[in-house]
Amino acid sequence: MIEDPSRKKIPRVAYLGPETTFTHQAAMHFFEDGANFRAAETIDDVFHLVETGSCDQGVVPIENTYEGSVSRTLDLFYEYDLKISAEIINRIHHNLLSKSKRLENIKVLYSHPMAIAQCRLWIKSTLNGVGIAEVGSTARAAKKAVEDPEAAAIGSIMAAEVYGLNVLQENIEDVADNFTRFMVIGKDQAVPTGRDKTSILISLMHQPGTLYRALETLARRNINMTRIESRPLKMGQWEYLFFMDLDGHEQDRSLGEALREMQGHCVFLKRLGSYPRAM
Amino acid sequence: MIEDPSRKKIPRVAYLGPETTFTHQAAMHFFEDGANFRAAETIDDVFHLVETGSCDQGVVPIENTYEGSVSRTLDLFYEYDLKISAEIINRIHHNLLSKSKRLENIKVLYSHPMAIAQCRLWIKSTLNGVGIAEVGSTARAAKKAVEDPEAAAIGSIMAAEVYGLNVLQENIEDVADNFTRFMVIGKDQAVPTGRDKTSILISLMHQPGTLYRALETLARRNINMTRIESRPLKMGQWEYLFFMDLDGHEQDRSLGEALREMQGHCVFLKRLGSYPRAM
Repeated sequence: MIEDPSRKKIPRVAYLGPETTFTHQAAMHFFEDGANFRAAETIDDVFHLVETGSCDQGVVPIENTYEGSVSRTLDLFYEYDLKISAEIINRIHHNLLSKSKRLENIKVLYSHPMAIAQCRLWIKSTLNGVGIAEVGSTARAAKKAVEDPEAAAIGSIMAAEVYGLNVLQENIEDVADNFTRFMVIGKDQAVPTGRDKTSILISLMHQPGTLYRALETLARRNINMTRIESRPLKMGQWEYLFFMDLDGHEQDRSLGEALREMQGHCVFLKRLGSYPRAM
Repeated sequence: MIEDPSRKKIPRVAYLGPETTFTHQAAMHFFEDGANFRAAETIDDVFHLVETGSCDQGVVPIENTYEGSVSRTLDLFYEYDLKISAEIINRIHHNLLSKSKRLENIKVLYSHPMAIAQCRLWIKSTLNGVGIAEVGSTARAAKKAVEDPEAAAIGSIMAAEVYGLNVLQENIEDVADNFTRFMVIGKDQAVPTGRDKTSILISLMHQPGTLYRALETLARRNINMTRIESRPLKMGQWEYLFFMDLDGHEQDRSLGEALREMQGHCVFLKRLGSYPRAM
């Protein structure tokens, strides 16, 4: 295929900011050919920027994340009519960053509460006695470390580069298998690759067996479910939402049939998109 | 029943701190007859304090929360052998707190990113132009407001009382139905009340239909499931964990039978406890 460079359009991509968040890194990694990036303040803002056409695509965290609320992302898929066109799964590493070059100079450590929790053993063994200050994001922690040479931040290598900090120690996380999953959202659908996933959102009456009957349409066709999460539409009320990730593309015959049949068991079924598996 | 006051023991209760968090409020509300409370720094610490016997019971957030990670709580139920003895469901309200008594004096607003997100429309309409500073918890925001009379914090009425702040405006949240759910954990099991829930954690082989077959044991007995959430044991690997809340007590004949039968479909099934329904 010959590409016509004059037709190449640089995508405008919103992500959950500020700069150097894990979402930013995931977005940079995914749009490696370049994009016009825009840091949004909240996950809501990312959806809004894409919905209104201010951006072509958006990147939001959806699982096991330090930034924003995963459940907020799920709720926004209910509220907005945007499609998932890709997933990004990144290994998360934490590093000790500081203006200082010496560990002994550190008097206070800034980071997001979850990043602190993930590095607890390392902090206890290496920075014992150092004051710990929680801030709202790892990016903010890096900014605090810029202001104070006696401060350190837990953050990414990218944050060290952007904010001009030294990396005093790499990979200080206690747990090695620490992944975060992000979704790329937009108005277009990804084409089948033969190795895809499909995300759906269904609403069921809150009665015994409703989920069981909905899943039967998948089990009979040997369709694998890789994730399920329930959310009450309103706490204590009768209707429930289920977010599911299924193996396959909705254009596959078997999954297409299953979804049509499942729809008959649901109050509603919303197709959030089919996209290539990241892992 | 005559109670012997000499035998009454004040429970030692760990909660996810610091003081005045929503978890703290939930704990105070639940242990209304008094307890010896201890603020833990992380959800991990709450589990550890109860497991080692330093505290008799613990209170941790599990759904839709501003404090810590819900998924961390789920993972800790996998790691620790503690029982859920109660659930607490609280409506969350946000309020504008300040040392100042006048809205016009406010130059900066501190809060947790999620609290800010939940009050966005109100902030936009009432505090337009005021600087917004994200901090790691609503309790920390209140402390910042104590230090600076030109600052305000989004926080609870309890935080206003504890930190000596004025409540400039109550219930500033944009969404009215904002609930958080907490679990009371310990080593004892709650007795059946006739209106109970049971939480379990099951592990299934990552194959099509395994969840469907596990749920069949519930559907056949008309047992209602009120929540389900999947977690990969390791991302991209073959084994999956499912956290489920079911209607009924595990001492009920029908649920007891269902759980025994379900066990045959699982790699393992862990009973996290039966407890009275909060809603």
